[in-house]
Amino acid sequence: MNVVIVGAGNLATSLAHALYNAGHAIKAVFSRTIEHATALAANVNASPCDDISRLPADADVYVVAVKDDVILQVAQEVRACSPKALIVHTAGTVSVNVLPEGRRGVFYPMQTFSKQRVVDFAHIPVFIEADNPDDEQFLDIMACSISDQIYHIGGDQRKVLHLAAVFCCNFANHCAAIADNILSENEIPFSVMIPLIDETIAKLHQCPPLQAQTGPAVRNDLNVIRQHISQLKNNGHQDFADIYDILSKSIINLHQPR
Amino acid sequence: MNVVIVGAGNLATSLAHALYNAGHAIKAVFSRTIEHATALAANVNASPCDDISRLPADADVYVVAVKDDVILQVAQEVRACSPKALIVHTAGTVSVNVLPEGRRGVFYPMQTFSKQRVVDFAHIPVFIEADNPDDEQFLDIMACSISDQIYHIGGDQRKVLHLAAVFCCNFANHCAAIADNILSENEIPFSVMIPLIDETIAKLHQCPPLQAQTGPAVRNDLNVIRQHISQLKNNGHQDFADIYDILSKSIINLHQPR
Repeated sequence: MNVVIVGAGNLATSLAHALYNAGHAIKAVFSRTIEHATALAANVNASPCDDISRLPADADVYVVAVKDDVILQVAQEVRACSPKALIVHTAGTVSVNVLPEGRRGVFYPMQTFSKQRVVDFAHIPVFIEADNPDDEQFLDIMACSISDQIYHIGGDQRKVLHLAAVFCCNFANHCAAIADNILSENEIPFSVMIPLIDETIAKLHQCPPLQAQTGPAVRNDLNVIRQHISQLKNNGHQDFADIYDILSKSIINLHQPR
Repeated sequence: MNVVIVGAGNLATSLAHALYNAGHAIKAVFSRTIEHATALAANVNASPCDDISRLPADADVYVVAVKDDVILQVAQEVRACSPKALIVHTAGTVSVNVLPEGRRGVFYPMQTFSKQRVVDFAHIPVFIEADNPDDEQFLDIMACSISDQIYHIGGDQRKVLHLAAVFCCNFANHCAAIADNILSENEIPFSVMIPLIDETIAKLHQCPPLQAQTGPAVRNDLNVIRQHISQLKNNGHQDFADIYDILSKSIINLHQPR
C-alpha cells in the first residue's frame, strides 16, 4: 500500500516505522517543521514535505497523526489536495466525523509512544472504524500487517478506551514520577523501585487490579495515611499531599462493602 | 537460624515461605486467629500459636509482621515472653523505637505481597536497621539468605521509601482499578490494556518517569482533558473526575519549565 503520514510526532514516527517495516511504501511525511519531516522521512525512505498542498495526490491512505485540536484543519487541507482519498486519524477521543466528508476512518493504536523508543507493534491493539465497508476492510488489512490485535469499534467505545488508557498509562506513570521526585530529594535512586513496579504489573497479568490492591489505604491504615500526608506537606509538597489524600479516599471507597 | 513469625498476613506469609525455603527453621507462627496461624504454619513446618505468652522463648529472632498500629502492643508481649530476644518489625513507616527496649531492629522488604501469589524474594530490596552492630550483622546474614539486594538505612529514609512505594505500586494499581471500573461498565475486558501497561513499565526500565510521560496532560491538550472529565461526570463518576483533574494539573505543573 502507498501511505502518506501527516505528522512527525511520537505516534506518527512509530507508526511510519511499523508500516515501512511491514513492506508498505511511505510516499511522504508531512510536518509544518521541515526538520521533523526530514528526520522521519529519511528513516522510512519517504519524501519530506512541509506544504500539504504539495503532498502526492495518489496515495491509498493518508494517516493524519497530529495533535487532536488541529486534526480538523489538517484533514481539510489533505482533502483539498486529494478529494477521493481515504483519510484516517489516529486519535482516541476524536469522532470520525471531524474528518471532512468522503472516504474516512480511524486507525487508533492504543500505546504510549516516545520518539526515543522503538515499540514492537505486533501486540499493540489497533482499533478501527470506517464510514464504508470497503475502507474498513482496507484498514483491517493494513492493521493486520503490523499487529495481531485488531478490533472494530465505534467512537463511543474508543473514547472509553482512551480514557482508561490515560489512567493505566499516563496517570500510573505520573505516580512513578512523583515517587522519583520524592526519592531524588533524599538522594535515593529510582531504580530501587523497579522490582516493586515489576511485581505490581506482574500481578495485573494474573488478577484484576481491584483484587491486586495492597497498601495503607486498602488496609484502612489511617495512621500511616496521616503520616504520609504530613510528610509530604512538611516537605513543601502540598500538591502531592492532595493527590495522596484523594487517591487514598478513592481506594477506601472502592473497596468498601456496599 | 531459628525464627518465630508473629503475624500471618500477606507479608508474614511470603517472608515465612522465603525463610523456610532458604533453610531456616520456622519455630512458630503466631496469629490471634488460630486458623490463620495453622494455615501458614502447616506450609513452613512450624507450630501454630494464638497465645503469644506460649511462643518458644529461645528463637534467634522474632519477626513482628502485623498491622502498623498493633506493632507496639504485640512486640511488648513478645518481649515479655523473651526478654533477651532480637525483635524486628517489617514496617516502612514505623520507627525502630516503637519496639520495646532491648535487642531490636527493622527488616523491611519493599514489595507488594498478596497471599495468593508467591513472590520470588531473590531481587526484592530488603532495608535493614538495628540498634547494635551484632544484630545488624545477624539481620544482614538473614536478608542475604533470601535476597541479593540488601541496604542499611535509618528510619527517615525508610519512610521516604515507603511513601514512594505507595505511589509506584498502590496508587498506580488504583489507576488501573479505575480503568477497569470504566471498561467493565462498557463491557470491554481489562486485558486489552495489558500491552499498554507492559510498555509503560518497560519504559521505566530505560528512562526516568518524567521523561517517559505521554498523554493529554503533558501535551497540555486541554480539549481532551475537558472531554474526559465530562465523560466521567456524565457517567456518575464525580470522584474519578476529581482524580483526573488533580493528576492532570499535577502533570502539567511538573512538566512546566520553571
